[in-house]
Amino acid sequence: MQTRNGKRTGLAAVRIAVEMQKERLISQKIALLKIPAESIDSLLVPVFDPKALKSATLIGFGLPAGPGAAAGRIAFTAANAVTETRKGNKVVLCRSETSPDDLKGMLHSQGILTSRGGVSSHAALVARQLGKVCICGAGDININYEKRTLTAGKVVLHEGDYISINGSTGKIYKGAIETADSEVKRVLEGGLKPASSFTYELFKTVMKWADKHRSLKIRTNADTPLMARQAVSFGAEGIGLCRTEHMFFDGDRIDYMRQMILAVDEVQRRTALKKLLPFQRKDFVGLFKEMNGRPVTIRLLDPPLHEFLPHDDVVRRQLAEKLGVPFDFVIDRIKSLHEENPMLGCRGCRLGILYPEITEMQTRAIFEAAAQVLKNKRGIRVNPEIMIPLVGFREELSDQLGIVHRIAREVMKAKRVRVNYTVGTMVEVPRAAITADEIAMEADFFSFGTNDLTQTTLGLSRDDMGLFYDEYQRKEIFSQNPFASLDQSGVGKLMKLAVDKGRTAKPELKLGICGEHAGDPSSIDYCHRAGLNYVSCSPPRVPVARLAAAQAKLRNS
Amino acid sequence: MQTRNGKRTGLAAVRIAVEMQKERLISQKIALLKIPAESIDSLLVPVFDPKALKSATLIGFGLPAGPGAAAGRIAFTAANAVTETRKGNKVVLCRSETSPDDLKGMLHSQGILTSRGGVSSHAALVARQLGKVCICGAGDININYEKRTLTAGKVVLHEGDYISINGSTGKIYKGAIETADSEVKRVLEGGLKPASSFTYELFKTVMKWADKHRSLKIRTNADTPLMARQAVSFGAEGIGLCRTEHMFFDGDRIDYMRQMILAVDEVQRRTALKKLLPFQRKDFVGLFKEMNGRPVTIRLLDPPLHEFLPHDDVVRRQLAEKLGVPFDFVIDRIKSLHEENPMLGCRGCRLGILYPEITEMQTRAIFEAAAQVLKNKRGIRVNPEIMIPLVGFREELSDQLGIVHRIAREVMKAKRVRVNYTVGTMVEVPRAAITADEIAMEADFFSFGTNDLTQTTLGLSRDDMGLFYDEYQRKEIFSQNPFASLDQSGVGKLMKLAVDKGRTAKPELKLGICGEHAGDPSSIDYCHRAGLNYVSCSPPRVPVARLAAAQAKLRNS
Repeated sequence: MQTRNGKRTGLAAVRIAVEMQKERLISQKIALLKIPAESIDSLLVPVFDPKALKSATLIGFGLPAGPGAAAGRIAFTAANAVTETRKGNKVVLCRSETSPDDLKGMLHSQGILTSRGGVSSHAALVARQLGKVCICGAGDININYEKRTLTAGKVVLHEGDYISINGSTGKIYKGAIETADSEVKRVLEGGLKPASSFTYELFKTVMKWADKHRSLKIRTNADTPLMARQAVSFGAEGIGLCRTEHMFFDGDRIDYMRQMILAVDEVQRRTALKKLLPFQRKDFVGLFKEMNGRPVTIRLLDPPLHEFLPHDDVVRRQLAEKLGVPFDFVIDRIKSLHEENPMLGCRGCRLGILYPEITEMQTRAIFEAAAQVLKNKRGIRVNPEIMIPLVGFREELSDQLGIVHRIAREVMKAKRVRVNYTVGTMVEVPRAAITADEIAMEADFFSFGTNDLTQTTLGLSRDDMGLFYDEYQRKEIFSQNPFASLDQSGVGKLMKLAVDKGRTAKPELKLGICGEHAGDPSSIDYCHRAGLNYVSCSPPRVPVARLAAAQAKLRNS
Repeated sequence: MQTRNGKRTGLAAVRIAVEMQKERLISQKIALLKIPAESIDSLLVPVFDPKALKSATLIGFGLPAGPGAAAGRIAFTAANAVTETRKGNKVVLCRSETSPDDLKGMLHSQGILTSRGGVSSHAALVARQLGKVCICGAGDININYEKRTLTAGKVVLHEGDYISINGSTGKIYKGAIETADSEVKRVLEGGLKPASSFTYELFKTVMKWADKHRSLKIRTNADTPLMARQAVSFGAEGIGLCRTEHMFFDGDRIDYMRQMILAVDEVQRRTALKKLLPFQRKDFVGLFKEMNGRPVTIRLLDPPLHEFLPHDDVVRRQLAEKLGVPFDFVIDRIKSLHEENPMLGCRGCRLGILYPEITEMQTRAIFEAAAQVLKNKRGIRVNPEIMIPLVGFREELSDQLGIVHRIAREVMKAKRVRVNYTVGTMVEVPRAAITADEIAMEADFFSFGTNDLTQTTLGLSRDDMGLFYDEYQRKEIFSQNPFASLDQSGVGKLMKLAVDKGRTAKPELKLGICGEHAGDPSSIDYCHRAGLNYVSCSPPRVPVARLAAAQAKLRNS
């Protein structure tokens, strides 16, 4: 049953399917299969604030190529888009056409506007893959790179001026229009009554059907209680990936983190880690409370340490002063941490093996947080799953496992509390998949980190494929972007190998996926067929994943 | 049968085995198995020129930890070793101890001298893995990093002064002693009569036995006629890897190469490539003549283009002047070619797919060279095997195959000559192994590029593992350096998968290996068991590989 139809808008597709079922023209199953999973997204994307929109100046039209509303400063080059967003500004990337070189700039932008190209142009394809608001082929506007101007009739905008675009309608506005949440989101967050939103009723109906028919669990990737709450309101049944490093950037924490990295010995490192412990513990308390007994998969520190150090000499000098060390010392340490291929360097469990005190601190934070939540007697339950990243050798996992179990016992004894927990690993390098039978002996669960697994399996860095991506699409070497939709005949086969080897060695092994593919309908279909237990996607993708999981079950049974 | 015995020197081990067989105490097979394959190496390593040695000043002793003789300027840090060798100087790295941080410096040095540590110290282990001359634990000498001095009794040497070390005897000398080739090498090159060298007789006997008992073919990795000739004299039966990019660095060629890279369009690129064509053709003529009908596997351009551009602003400015373009233009292009993860970026067949004119030029050079050699009527035969690097998708190979066959037909028609050739691919990313059945449909042969395959399968960059390598050895996560000896339970399994899938799809598929593992005896044993047709190692490793291949056959039959 081929159900895709580019000409219907997302809302219309949902509406038609639901109404046909209500009139008993089609069954619930057929209705579910008739709705393109992606179309749920258009019920959830931000819209322009209706009040603000009244006084807005419409300056032109283009093809609606990525749903939602976006406002930001005009950037005419990808590089400027990156620079502006690094300064904390929102930008809309405006180009006559985009090319693979613009990928990084597109990632940083709120939305993308092009004056040339159709709905299958580079800009449109990539925007949809990235979930970006996009208008393409807006012949009404003229972009002049030399003069740095965007002209629409008599209106002349310059780089840095505000512009607003509605990727659901194709309308382009001068100035910054405030965006507002969708009706569905407002109902879910309590700002709007369910009965007063027709869109919400449609959403609720489809989600209820989907949940009845799917067998895959849907989790979310969330690092903060706020993200977790949003995901739960969208239907997430657990956290499949909490990236602990995101917790190290806020406020003072980054200073302690840097102090830890620049420590000359274990004593200094432990001193800095001790200062980070209360922050991590507090973060975990917040997450555990929010998730109340739902599984929370916490990934231990993953990125290479140099990612936490400042790039700017001024900030480096400040850091040296703050830590009371010579500037040259800071520079030397930064140099010594430099990596030729950061993706394949000292990161993941390699960090915890080199510096066991990092794993100790993070484990302590998790169990102290769990104890605190369990002991406050409000009946909140806690279900932590500790995930060791970048494992390729069974011995790596058992090394880290030893630390986790030791600290867990220590804390549980000291706090006189019993925490149910599991420990597992990410499968994100091919060696982990090839030796999955051995690794499964040590692991309670595997979570496929398909972003990194795609990079290592294809020998292809997502950051660097801009130069040839377009040519690969044109020559049909890539049938789709392998980072947006799972490369089923390559990476997928390796996953299946890991599933089979892992389950043969340990039948009760829990299996999930936490790469970006977990929000992509065709990848979800593959995960269902491969026998995974859950997919874990970003919070806004949870509804799409629920529907896609139901469709996968219906399609394959 | 365990035959390793660290206490015998290499020469003694060979001698004992050969003499026992001559006296009929053991069979030829047992004699072969009794010789540690590595010990052949000690018959081949350079020695100090006996005349020069007479006037040399011995300043101390250490443990012989890596056989051979080396002379060079003293470098007290790995960084200085790298800097000096980049200037064209030979260095001996002198450290109290080495650590994984020193890996790069060790690679660049002629030899390594340490004042502390035994024969299983880091320096000794790594030197043996790298085939470097090494003396360790030389208590007679004192290295003072602060004063930048090496003191031995009353002799004080400074950084940059010359020193000479004999890693077969442990003797340390002041000054630069000329090194000379081993007797075996001198016989093979015609400078010494066979009858006057006992060592050569031993070598010849063992090699004759080995060739009788092995089934693996031994090829070599060679880019120049000189390397090819040396390898053939050592017994190489073909070239398994000719890296064409090495031909782009000599003399004027690098200028044309840079002109090609900085070209603004295809026309400019083709103009520069046209200038490179005669150089490449001449190189191939030389190789074909030298190899006379033996297979020559030519790998098309592999490294990312930024590797060919200068790092130094002075040279960049000169380049801009030479090409008549603004300095800023050069800088911009260099920036646009920068990669986050160069190993996983725009390299290998991705270059030929993005710039088909590069593949065209290289193919044209190969076939014009073949035609020239075939037409000179001296009866020299030609057997080129064209190898497409970094293939992960069948479509990549078929794209490049189309170009190769088209140009081959064009040249053969124009030159009225028929060249027997084959086209195959490297298997160096996991996806190629996983989809080997599909890729085999397009390929005449696979060559496992196990350096890169190890990096991608383990998600581990060799350049960046210095930071944690030592800890991984200590915790026995690595039983050995996976870049020196094949990771049989990980990378090896993936290779076996590719062998099985490839041969199932195409039974006549030829299979080889051209990574550094091809010179390592235990990896050669694995390659024999996996059913490969040949191993291709560096020229000096060819004799070791011949013996190891025979031992593999004897051990496994």
